[in-house]
Amino acid sequence: MAAKWAQKTIILPPHKRGCHLITSQVMKEIQSDLATFKCGLAHLFLQHTSASLTINENYDSDVLDDVETFLNDTVPEGRKARWKHVLEGPDDMPAHIKSSMFGCSVTVPITDGRLNLGTWQGIWLCEHRDHGSARKVVITLQGA
Amino acid sequence: MAAKWAQKTIILPPHKRGCHLITSQVMKEIQSDLATFKCGLAHLFLQHTSASLTINENYDSDVLDDVETFLNDTVPEGRKARWKHVLEGPDDMPAHIKSSMFGCSVTVPITDGRLNLGTWQGIWLCEHRDHGSARKVVITLQGA
Amino acid sequence: MAAKWAQKTIILPPHKRGCHLITSQVMKEIQSDLATFKCGLAHLFLQHTSASLTINENYDSDVLDDVETFLNDTVPEGRKARWKHVLEGPDDMPAHIKSSMFGCSVTVPITDGRLNLGTWQGIWLCEHRDHGSARKVVITLQGA
Repeated sequence: MAAKWAQKTIILPPHKRGCHLITSQVMKEIQSDLATFKCGLAHLFLQHTSASLTINENYDSDVLDDVETFLNDTVPEGRKARWKHVLEGPDDMPAHIKSSMFGCSVTVPITDGRLNLGTWQGIWLCEHRDHGSARKVVITLQGA
Repeated sequence: MAAKWAQKTIILPPHKRGCHLITSQVMKEIQSDLATFKCGLAHLFLQHTSASLTINENYDSDVLDDVETFLNDTVPEGRKARWKHVLEGPDDMPAHIKSSMFGCSVTVPITDGRLNLGTWQGIWLCEHRDHGSARKVVITLQGA
Repeated sequence: MAAKWAQKTIILPPHKRGCHLITSQVMKEIQSDLATFKCGLAHLFLQHTSASLTINENYDSDVLDDVETFLNDTVPEGRKARWKHVLEGPDDMPAHIKSSMFGCSVTVPITDGRLNLGTWQGIWLCEHRDHGSARKVVITLQGA
């Protein structure tokens, strides 16, 4: 069976600093393409170095807040930090670090025309800047 | 050459909290399919938010223990923690955080019918709950 | 359209401990193959457990230094550490931990024959050993 590829760049509107569930925004953009794949993979790639994509809990928004708390407790910012890269503001260098901790891409299996996430899994955008702008995500679907 | 896809969900039995080498369990499940791919990729996707998959050392079990020590030292739990999400027990919120630190999926190249891991690399399941249940992993093989 | 696959193993020369931008080294190795893909994915897989691959800022070398500072501040080494795995030197166990924090692989979309990275994104090799040797990266290109 011939392989199929679909690729599009979506724009996520600005989100405030913290973790945000974006599964439904993503689904809206890819649903019609996704439905045509019986088996495959969906790759989401964030084209930025001060935010991240991850997969985590999809139900209790306290989890989103607690992960943000953890990131802020773990990566020093402001007076307690000793970064050389400070030209773009005190929140910029911590944002780069967090981006590599969680990563800028996720890959999710496609099964019978849908993302084969676990019951409690959702796709998160973690915005690490104080005033992040719109974020671009290149979505690549492949399969049969 | 036509692309080939193979996908199956495997069940890992309950593992105790900590890091575990699962390469041989995974291989047993996919070996016959794997052998038919000359070149490709294997994607393993854990359908849970309180455990993780990673690739690390395959020889000295002290490394497994030390990584678990690091995770516990880095992510506060119990009295020293200040999480909002505590309904599912003191080990639950730390487990979610660790899951995003290491991630829930790995992708490994396939070369000449086998996983092209480095000499010292193995696939790890990191169980972050005190009493984790069986864990589902969706394995997607693709290639030519 | 038939799927295409290309796979090669490249050797990165020894790098000193710290973070290094390797986009141009990687491009030199894959450019001719890459140009033949209209849409696809590039998967880079480091065959080692004491270094990592990540995607981060491509312009200010202070960011590379600050990420190395963060990793060293976060993962205890030497007297302040309590690792069991110490046979291969005090920098070895911290290196394994950092490798799982950042991961050993990255996947980048291919669009119109080029890596579709964001404006400020580059591919990094993070060498976590004091005296790392040459590092092997299996690069798998797929697409149409």
